Amino acid sequence: MQDLIDRFKSGDTRALARTISLLENEDPQNEELMKELFYRTGRAYVIGFTGAPGAGKSSLVDLVVKQLRAEGQTVGIIAVDPTSPFTGGALLGDRIRMQEHALDKGVFIRSMGTRGSLGGLAKTTKDVVKALDAFGFDWVVVETVGVGQAELDIMHVADTTLVVLTPGAGDAIQTIKAGIMEIADIFAINKSDLPGADKIATEVEMMLDHQCDRMQWRPPVNQVSCFTGRGIPELVESIKKHRRYLTDNNLFLPRRQERLRAETLEIANHKWRQKVLKQLELPGKVNELLDRVVNKQTDPYTAAYEILAHVAANQSKNNF
Amino acid sequence: MQDLIDRFKSGDTRALARTISLLENEDPQNEELMKELFYRTGRAYVIGFTGAPGAGKSSLVDLVVKQLRAEGQTVGIIAVDPTSPFTGGALLGDRIRMQEHALDKGVFIRSMGTRGSLGGLAKTTKDVVKALDAFGFDWVVVETVGVGQAELDIMHVADTTLVVLTPGAGDAIQTIKAGIMEIADIFAINKSDLPGADKIATEVEMMLDHQCDRMQWRPPVNQVSCFTGRGIPELVESIKKHRRYLTDNNLFLPRRQERLRAETLEIANHKWRQKVLKQLELPGKVNELLDRVVNKQTDPYTAAYEILAHVAANQSKNNF
Repeated sequence: MQDLIDRFKSGDTRALARTISLLENEDPQNEELMKELFYRTGRAYVIGFTGAPGAGKSSLVDLVVKQLRAEGQTVGIIAVDPTSPFTGGALLGDRIRMQEHALDKGVFIRSMGTRGSLGGLAKTTKDVVKALDAFGFDWVVVETVGVGQAELDIMHVADTTLVVLTPGAGDAIQTIKAGIMEIADIFAINKSDLPGADKIATEVEMMLDHQCDRMQWRPPVNQVSCFTGRGIPELVESIKKHRRYLTDNNLFLPRRQERLRAETLEIANHKWRQKVLKQLELPGKVNELLDRVVNKQTDPYTAAYEILAHVAANQSKNNF
Repeated sequence: MQDLIDRFKSGDTRALARTISLLENEDPQNEELMKELFYRTGRAYVIGFTGAPGAGKSSLVDLVVKQLRAEGQTVGIIAVDPTSPFTGGALLGDRIRMQEHALDKGVFIRSMGTRGSLGGLAKTTKDVVKALDAFGFDWVVVETVGVGQAELDIMHVADTTLVVLTPGAGDAIQTIKAGIMEIADIFAINKSDLPGADKIATEVEMMLDHQCDRMQWRPPVNQVSCFTGRGIPELVESIKKHRRYLTDNNLFLPRRQERLRAETLEIANHKWRQKVLKQLELPGKVNELLDRVVNKQTDPYTAAYEILAHVAANQSKNNF
């Protein structure tokens, strides 16, 4: 493990890849790894790209990354595809992308599917973001399908969140329903070379008009096209503008600190659950209490309090 | 509170309505209520109806309930609409439904929206199911939109889960993607008077052909129409057949008991989180530890273990 950490610190890309693989599996050793990485984190700026499948997120990310690279910035990319049954998400598309950047040490791409993330996709994604941050990338891009709460949670890792929409019936309405509007710092209307782009842009602007309480930062609506290259520089400028907005208004650090607190508490909660589950593996007080509930000798609440007291008493002695 | 419980036990419908309102708000008194109700639960059979918005779930539920009523059975209905911004879900449709059953004491309908369920919609729904069960209904029907994980979780309360599909492009595919296929015990192809019903029924049968491991109970695919009344008796027969299947194969009670265990542990976890959150309200050890993480004086994992030990030590003394 120490060898891996040393190679990671020396900038060995294979050590980074190996680190991410370890993080994807809930190995006890990961804690040691994450503890080490933690002190190197906090420098990278995190951009999230979300949108429906087929919205062209990957192509858009590639163009944005290209521009950042042209400015000498390094970028780590995490493509999360929870809808894919394969580990590694869109495997084929990914290989093509990886080849394109294969000779560029300033870009690192990693795909994550549903499998291989026992601790929850959001937690794993956050850990991988930290790994890329600790490795020294200037920017980290997280790209995911915005379909459910789990995918929205992934976006909570981002400093700036882009919602990618495309001209198409019901797109905007679906987005409102899914609660994606609320997380958008920037809208990108992709495939703006297709008919209907103006219509959806207008729809989004109208929805923003109704959200008076968010007017401190009104999300810009950027029409872009990966096909013609239209609007990409403006989109990158929107990202930088949002970053300046957060910094200038003293929102950047407090938000990150709040997330760090929440993450720490989440780790504590997770450890607690693991302790309880471990007690379930053997006959004993906790299993006895659950049997009593099933046999209606006690109610679930009374049993829950007794479980808490028992696990706490047991664990404060033996330490967690 | 005791007065309410007494009226509930005497079969006062207004006491039931009041009880459900209390359960929707995370009142400390609810525990007392749930403890009392617990010993009266376990008799009702729970059916879940899920499907996309507009699939005609409510109409289908109404027809199924009508048949159960004709057989002298009593039914409690919970209509969960997490996509509705209003408490009470589809308010208008609901009033119409309620009027229809207003004079029938054997039917009770309750709508639940996103608001008014602080402890999570799934937990609240489970509690309301228990209230209807404890009140003495023979059947409890839970009806919800199958869009995300949270809504799928609601379905874990059901003994038999019906997935409602309609003739329409991409319907079946969307259902597979959303993971709804896995939870279906019965498929109902609603609006089967419209073109395309045979096609979607065939698609579902083909998907079932591929799931060899589930062949112990192969979900029947019922074509129904609320407009013509086609297939409703057959659908009710499918439900009863699944119920018999569970009982005859000794699956019914073990599954319920497993859920009860899981619920009890979930209550314990929830109480634990509440204890930690309470510690956050005041200056003290937990806040100090989080500050140390933010200032990079310690890492999140080390802090998490110390939080666990601190809360446990504190709580085993004072009891939970």
